[in-house]
Amino acid sequence: MRIPYPELLQTLDAILLRRGFTPARAALCARLFAETTCDGVYSHGLNRFLRTIENGAIDIHAEPALASSAGALERWDGRRGPGNLNAHAAMARAVSLAAAHGIGCVALSNTNHWMRGGSYGWQAADAGCIGICWTNTMPNLPPWGGTRPTLGNNPLVLAVPRPEGHIVLDMAMSQFSYGALDSYRRRGQLLPVDGGFDAAGQLTRDPAAIEETRRLLPAGFWKGSGLALLLDLIAATLAQGQATHQIAPDPELETGLSQIFLALAPGSTQPIADQILASLGEGIRYPGQQVLQTRAENLTQGVPVDPALWAQLQTP
Amino acid sequence: MRIPYPELLQTLDAILLRRGFTPARAALCARLFAETTCDGVYSHGLNRFLRTIENGAIDIHAEPALASSAGALERWDGRRGPGNLNAHAAMARAVSLAAAHGIGCVALSNTNHWMRGGSYGWQAADAGCIGICWTNTMPNLPPWGGTRPTLGNNPLVLAVPRPEGHIVLDMAMSQFSYGALDSYRRRGQLLPVDGGFDAAGQLTRDPAAIEETRRLLPAGFWKGSGLALLLDLIAATLAQGQATHQIAPDPELETGLSQIFLALAPGSTQPIADQILASLGEGIRYPGQQVLQTRAENLTQGVPVDPALWAQLQTP
Repeated sequence: MRIPYPELLQTLDAILLRRGFTPARAALCARLFAETTCDGVYSHGLNRFLRTIENGAIDIHAEPALASSAGALERWDGRRGPGNLNAHAAMARAVSLAAAHGIGCVALSNTNHWMRGGSYGWQAADAGCIGICWTNTMPNLPPWGGTRPTLGNNPLVLAVPRPEGHIVLDMAMSQFSYGALDSYRRRGQLLPVDGGFDAAGQLTRDPAAIEETRRLLPAGFWKGSGLALLLDLIAATLAQGQATHQIAPDPELETGLSQIFLALAPGSTQPIADQILASLGEGIRYPGQQVLQTRAENLTQGVPVDPALWAQLQTP
Repeated sequence: MRIPYPELLQTLDAILLRRGFTPARAALCARLFAETTCDGVYSHGLNRFLRTIENGAIDIHAEPALASSAGALERWDGRRGPGNLNAHAAMARAVSLAAAHGIGCVALSNTNHWMRGGSYGWQAADAGCIGICWTNTMPNLPPWGGTRPTLGNNPLVLAVPRPEGHIVLDMAMSQFSYGALDSYRRRGQLLPVDGGFDAAGQLTRDPAAIEETRRLLPAGFWKGSGLALLLDLIAATLAQGQATHQIAPDPELETGLSQIFLALAPGSTQPIADQILASLGEGIRYPGQQVLQTRAENLTQGVPVDPALWAQLQTP
């Protein structure tokens, strides 16, 4: 079923108000969830978010606090507040710093899952900035050459503003997410490329085999493995926060994350960005292009939601 | 054959002096080449560098000039000076900006091949900074879904300082470089994983087949493809310089590159970095670890050089 975007937004807002969010925070948090759903990213669900409020991982009233400043680089303590509100505040602060210094960086400790990382790339680009941000995660990815998940898949976001539609890359360091494996398995499909190792230690395109071993493949083998490590090192070091190995390996208890938010004031991105996109060749899509199409379609025709989930959300 | 490091350094220095470099610039340029060779990276050779001086791509006397400043973010014009000297100056400036503002960024236009990108990561880390830098390149990588090389392989470097040895990741966006394909083919070996497409459009581990089609595979398929695009977009935009599609697709004429140099003052990286490395598990190597071993061995036993090449370098 499809729900008009305003109704989706209002429903989420009402749920958060009932949970005790202040009106302003409920409105922003609901908008971030609604936009993510409207953009076609259905995997970062409200349900897990609500459970992590119940189990105490998230303190809904906590706001990030400035821990130290070095000018254009600031360290903030997320105080285990809602991950999307903390991330939004951190990128907003990085954008302010960029207005003053050309570039701004916020290193955020002690925060929670930021839901869709791309949101903060879109946010920076809406403010006219180039945005770069990443988060560490619980251990969920074996390093290249290892079998135990000691790395996080540490999503990385890069965004470039453009009047005709921002260019936003949102990529985790595993070739596929568990959400993607689940989707392929449910559809009875193999992955388009190898996504991990089976029980015999062989690379495989069978999603169920990878779900069983939990040996996801780093994107680019040793390359994604190295990049995941460095992103964790930089985030934990700059934020003086937890590293992946210190984070509870359970999605419902995953808290105390470290994140980096960079904003850069580019002057104008015109006409460079358009020329680069035009140079890629016929039929080559750029990161964020599909999101714009999905967003436009869902705003006109309504946002697809699971009927059972939707019924559940109506219950006070 | 193995040459003592001081002799290698002196030989390179003498060559650059004969070419007309000032003593200070010859010394730094020779050191960057000698260190790269000593660290086991033999692919970024002096010969191509000398040819690009002869053909006019490099102006050996040109020094980068400040084009604009926004505080912690500066734009510099590389004026087609030697790529490694320009990159070294840009990272040094980013480190100075980080000392003043916590973070510093230099966007450099109109420069040349920086040779080994890792050099500027080691440089930032030696100065106690986290370093992040990248360059665009000539078109040499087909985007995911395309067959023509419209992307660059755009090497990305991330470095974290650590007293026991810095952690330095230096990765191009193709799964393998042409240098790596050449090495595997000469040794008669298949690549360890798929590295590109053969003439039939199938993924292959045969280096010769990929050299023929020139269809290198982006690391992580669509992920490396997207990342290469965003790195080019950000570099060309911030530097107001050339994008990949504007750069001559010939290694000897490749000039006018755009590069980004970020330095961040982390306070201390101890004990976080050590704890993270220890958490990876037995036998998992970190980026930069092999370099440290190679460097130590070559400093003690001499640096391996090709005898024919070495003889050639002695000729005035």
